[in-house]
Amino acid sequence: MARMRRQEATANRFDEVAFCEAIGRKLRPRRGSVEIGIGDDAAVIVASASARRADRERLVVSVDAIVEGVHFRRDWLSELELGYRAVVTALSDLAAMAATPRWALISLGMPGDLGAAGALEIVRGAARAARAYRIDVAGGDTTRSETLFISVTVGGSTDSPLTRSGASPGDVLVVTGSLGAASAALSTWQDAGPRGHRGTLNGLPMSAVTRLRRSFAKPRARFREALALRRAGARALIDISDGLLSEAAHLARASKSTAVVDLANVPIHRDARSIFVARGIDPALAAATSGEEYALVAAIPPAKIRAALALPGVVRVGEITPRRPGVDVLVRDRTGTLSRPDALGWRHF
Amino acid sequence: MARMRRQEATANRFDEVAFCEAIGRKLRPRRGSVEIGIGDDAAVIVASASARRADRERLVVSVDAIVEGVHFRRDWLSELELGYRAVVTALSDLAAMAATPRWALISLGMPGDLGAAGALEIVRGAARAARAYRIDVAGGDTTRSETLFISVTVGGSTDSPLTRSGASPGDVLVVTGSLGAASAALSTWQDAGPRGHRGTLNGLPMSAVTRLRRSFAKPRARFREALALRRAGARALIDISDGLLSEAAHLARASKSTAVVDLANVPIHRDARSIFVARGIDPALAAATSGEEYALVAAIPPAKIRAALALPGVVRVGEITPRRPGVDVLVRDRTGTLSRPDALGWRHF
Repeated sequence: MARMRRQEATANRFDEVAFCEAIGRKLRPRRGSVEIGIGDDAAVIVASASARRADRERLVVSVDAIVEGVHFRRDWLSELELGYRAVVTALSDLAAMAATPRWALISLGMPGDLGAAGALEIVRGAARAARAYRIDVAGGDTTRSETLFISVTVGGSTDSPLTRSGASPGDVLVVTGSLGAASAALSTWQDAGPRGHRGTLNGLPMSAVTRLRRSFAKPRARFREALALRRAGARALIDISDGLLSEAAHLARASKSTAVVDLANVPIHRDARSIFVARGIDPALAAATSGEEYALVAAIPPAKIRAALALPGVVRVGEITPRRPGVDVLVRDRTGTLSRPDALGWRHF
Repeated sequence: MARMRRQEATANRFDEVAFCEAIGRKLRPRRGSVEIGIGDDAAVIVASASARRADRERLVVSVDAIVEGVHFRRDWLSELELGYRAVVTALSDLAAMAATPRWALISLGMPGDLGAAGALEIVRGAARAARAYRIDVAGGDTTRSETLFISVTVGGSTDSPLTRSGASPGDVLVVTGSLGAASAALSTWQDAGPRGHRGTLNGLPMSAVTRLRRSFAKPRARFREALALRRAGARALIDISDGLLSEAAHLARASKSTAVVDLANVPIHRDARSIFVARGIDPALAAATSGEEYALVAAIPPAKIRAALALPGVVRVGEITPRRPGVDVLVRDRTGTLSRPDALGWRHF
């Protein structure tokens, strides 16, 4: 499914790729109105028969759920932050198609202890995100649920969706900013408890801990960067839900090629680096496997790379190579040695 | 929100109407692309600026979640049935707008004990519903969740959505078929346990119990009826999620009027009637408050009522009257006495 890869990417209960492919077989589009279905960041739909002739604009839709105990804990984030975050993480899938966002629907499962006040705070957070991205919340559904979940459907439009599958060997892989903050924020909570961000941690000043917390609590969907990358010539695009290595693998697999990521080039969030070092973790690998980042990864043809790298924050992190059978992604260390990473992304707790 | 009324309609933890209105205030559309937002069965969206001029066809979207322990128990329905049912109940909101269904997105929260096989059965059920209604499952999201949930977003199109708010005093209220089967099926399970449908119950033959079970397990979205009612002149439409009385109340409230339902005219499912009688419940009231029915309720102007009643299964159940302050719906008994019903719908267990 469009985002079927997401949360199961690192779950070990069953083979994610096999599971998603099995789902894809059961749900293969039949009617012709779906141009791009399961397997990309979002689905692309021709709105109507008349639109197909008269209008090149396509409807782009995606759904993304965040679930208590899997994607968040309520002692980490306020209800306001949860509502905001749920909308933005869903919107990120539209950014990953270089679409323009338009509307959202919110499906909310509310445990008894959330209360009406908590539910309204979630809605307030969602409304705040909607204003920030100039979209409308067009509707939704509320239900009781023992487990708190927020499933957000987003819709947008584009006349030229940028999929995962357009990359070719020789393309340069770029990323739209430094990585690792989300993983570092989670690790500070796991170390110090939910109030860890109120003091100093691992020698980091409070301002740095606050920045890390904000990266996780208030992510940003990269619409501006997506449109700039498309103008610069990008021909494949994906957002980082599970980690740079995991997303590079998805992009390469969809493009029938193999991605190579240079660990030395992975841009590392400054505050996150201090956390990783203090914890004795390789900062580049930690940044390259940090999920929930929502930076974008793009494949740029060699002739266009100068324009792409001129964009603010855009950094070269690797390249697309001819397909090696069974290999989606390789990492290259500082000595030039290629190896298969043993963990591609971030395992939800 | 579009379906915000639904599952909370009969919950007593907080005032549903106040809650939904509070949500509506926080989420009022701002951008002009949403023609109909929160408060109807589905949202209606103008696809693009160019479509607004060139094309009268609108995008109609809705989301609906079913949650374990609230809308179903896994010992009542198979995973295949759950997937089928989740898609159809979401589609029913498009039928209630007289829209043509086109696509669905599925957001699935999977507890550990469901397993990959169970998840794939849900997907298989969803795919079966998609085939039955000639739509595509365009994508989705899977995640772990302690509580099993299936949140289905559906999209369709129409050039003339039929809302809840178009009724006028004098209109006749009709319903598209007999009611009570869903409630009766649930009561047989509650009496006899999940295997109750395998034997006879309350003197009903197995075939009758099986029919009741099927009504709940395999509901039908009334697209054909909706289009026929529109052609016949219906000017307001809603589907029965919570019960006829509850939906008549929603329709009347949205239309700034008061609905009157004649209990003597409520069509009662034959097998359900036997169950209600055996349980000592008034069959008409039980049928009028049975949720999860997905029959449609329409308001028909008096001049068109003959055409509407000529449609198969369509029955007159009441009328729209001038607004009585604070009163959405009244029931009229066999003696002609009007009273306010004390329970409008079905409380989720």
